[in-house]
Amino acid sequence: MTTHRIAVIPGDGIGKEVVPAGLEALHATAGRFDLRLAFDTFDFASADYWQRHGTMLPNDWEETLRGYDAIYFGAVGWPEVVPDHVSLWGSLLQFRRVFDQYVNLRPCRLMPGVQSPLAGRGPGDIDFVVVRENTEGEYSSVGGRIFEGTDRETVLQETVMTRVGVDRVLRFAFELASRRPQRHLTSATKSNGISISMPYWDERVAAMAEEFPGVRLDKFHIDALAAHFVLHPGWFDVVVASNLFGDILSDLGPACTGTLGIAPSANINPEREHPSLFEPVHGSAPDIAGKGIANPIGQIWCGSMMLDHLGHPEAAAHLLGAVEDVLARGPRDAPLTPDLHGSGTTAELGHAIAERV
Amino acid sequence: MTTHRIAVIPGDGIGKEVVPAGLEALHATAGRFDLRLAFDTFDFASADYWQRHGTMLPNDWEETLRGYDAIYFGAVGWPEVVPDHVSLWGSLLQFRRVFDQYVNLRPCRLMPGVQSPLAGRGPGDIDFVVVRENTEGEYSSVGGRIFEGTDRETVLQETVMTRVGVDRVLRFAFELASRRPQRHLTSATKSNGISISMPYWDERVAAMAEEFPGVRLDKFHIDALAAHFVLHPGWFDVVVASNLFGDILSDLGPACTGTLGIAPSANINPEREHPSLFEPVHGSAPDIAGKGIANPIGQIWCGSMMLDHLGHPEAAAHLLGAVEDVLARGPRDAPLTPDLHGSGTTAELGHAIAERV
Ligand SMILES: CC(C)[C@H](C(=O)O)[C@@H](O)C(=O)O
Ligand SMILES: CC(C)[C@H](C(=O)O)[C@@H](O)C(=O)O
Repeated sequence: MTTHRIAVIPGDGIGKEVVPAGLEALHATAGRFDLRLAFDTFDFASADYWQRHGTMLPNDWEETLRGYDAIYFGAVGWPEVVPDHVSLWGSLLQFRRVFDQYVNLRPCRLMPGVQSPLAGRGPGDIDFVVVRENTEGEYSSVGGRIFEGTDRETVLQETVMTRVGVDRVLRFAFELASRRPQRHLTSATKSNGISISMPYWDERVAAMAEEFPGVRLDKFHIDALAAHFVLHPGWFDVVVASNLFGDILSDLGPACTGTLGIAPSANINPEREHPSLFEPVHGSAPDIAGKGIANPIGQIWCGSMMLDHLGHPEAAAHLLGAVEDVLARGPRDAPLTPDLHGSGTTAELGHAIAERV
Repeated sequence: MTTHRIAVIPGDGIGKEVVPAGLEALHATAGRFDLRLAFDTFDFASADYWQRHGTMLPNDWEETLRGYDAIYFGAVGWPEVVPDHVSLWGSLLQFRRVFDQYVNLRPCRLMPGVQSPLAGRGPGDIDFVVVRENTEGEYSSVGGRIFEGTDRETVLQETVMTRVGVDRVLRFAFELASRRPQRHLTSATKSNGISISMPYWDERVAAMAEEFPGVRLDKFHIDALAAHFVLHPGWFDVVVASNLFGDILSDLGPACTGTLGIAPSANINPEREHPSLFEPVHGSAPDIAGKGIANPIGQIWCGSMMLDHLGHPEAAAHLLGAVEDVLARGPRDAPLTPDLHGSGTTAELGHAIAERV
């Protein structure tokens, strides 16, 4: 039995609060399934580190992290101390690029015991996964300003799409769709308004579709698609999107399933040449940080995705099952956090899930 | 009493079905308030025109339309005949640019009699307006492809923001917010991921805010903002956004208020040097075109916004009041269209509203 070496980076804000709960659940699962997980915790990729060192990461971060099988990540971003674009481009967005984690996988599922903000939707009514391109597209630091400080001031920001970058995430999405019972893939576009990059995206989608005749394909412009998430969330199975559109849809999807607090994400390098990174969708949440009431389920679900990625699908399913069981008991009988209409703390909900495992 | 000259462009799909209903309501309102409206209808900016002429617009479209006080627009886009980016860049997006309609104003209001997809929300709970930048930003045709057809294929797409372009729409939004009872403005950004254009947007927002100390300002990243539209739609009053973000939010907002079918938009040149353009948010809707069941309310509400713009706020309010009255009767007693859970046709609902006027 191999030992999986896992780098733990709690980061900022509620990241530091939910990671311990996530680790507790992972320890419990490892105990039950006799898995060997070895964790090392790092303090970089945080505003604290920035205050001490003036950078987000040590010089040797790449060698340091490269040796790990996975990165278990909390959240980064603390705008009071360091502007978001500096902290993010100095850490998380670097990890995604340098470790070529080109797929960001974000399941959206309405869970038992969780109330959807959408009228009349219950568990099972919403169950799809967003496959987001994670290394290029609209997220680029290419561009600049000219005529600064004058009335002619002009700012250019490049979106960069490459055939390699687009095709590989599309292939991943088509393959994923072809393995799911519904075999349905939806592509997010905006080729009517954004007239160079998005028609290119559509072209590559059409080309890739020829290799997957068994997958039912449709596409929507991002504006209409956002509306359909609210009006017809049951229409979707796998949704593939560029970096920005995937970002938006993977916050909107979890909102439709009740709370961002339970939503996980996996930043995957499918070839396993580099460590993949698992982080909840919610971010550092300065508004509730320090109160001990953050929902740890996003972080715990990330642990389940990580176990799956490491080759332990049974342990992964068991951990997610424990989450579902505790959620299903509802806010009266389980120590659910305030976002789930309960009065439990992060630690209490974490314990309850670890015990259930 | 001056006569207002209005260019009518029905365009494609349901545009051709809802425009007659919109005109009927405008005629009724003009009759009641003794307004002089003169309409000329044009067949360009449509797939039909494209099929006959190979272009979306005649050469002299600019001189032709420049003489009008307003443009009353249906919808354009018919991808079976002409790709969307060709038809849109060849018509609507030209109008917005050439006539410098730099504000796209899109009210989102939960109306009486309309069911929100959001649980527990009733009339009055959602009432905000999206102010969208309408001439620059992410909608640009600057960029291109290199290494075409090879594995190195790379596509570049520029986002272009100018100080003039950003500041003028921000000023409009701040002024609008300062005139509304709540005096609350929300800015949509994504400065944590899009590291050149969006930090610039944030900077200009902060600079403009100094001139409007009476306006309460907040900002959210677009992903979180989309989630809040679903989870906390009552938080918003005026929302200002770039071209793309405004596009997404102004489809998502109306979805949260029940149906895109009732949502209007005004493409405004605030200096009145050029005609402004009034079009419903819904688009040409190929899926229901030709069935006579499209909801005409978006188009009719556009007429109300147009009357307001032309200097007739009372007539505008009366027309919108008639819409509200008919909606409030509900799908049993009024001929509401299928998207409003009724079985009325476009024409029947249009008549009912015109009669009520
Ligand atoms: C048709 C399309 C180009 C247009 C836009 O994106 O501006 C439409 O969605 C709108 O919102 O008016
Ligand atoms: C923090 C931010 C840069 C990040 C993103 O936009 O990718 C986050 O929203 C996410 O979705 O992981």
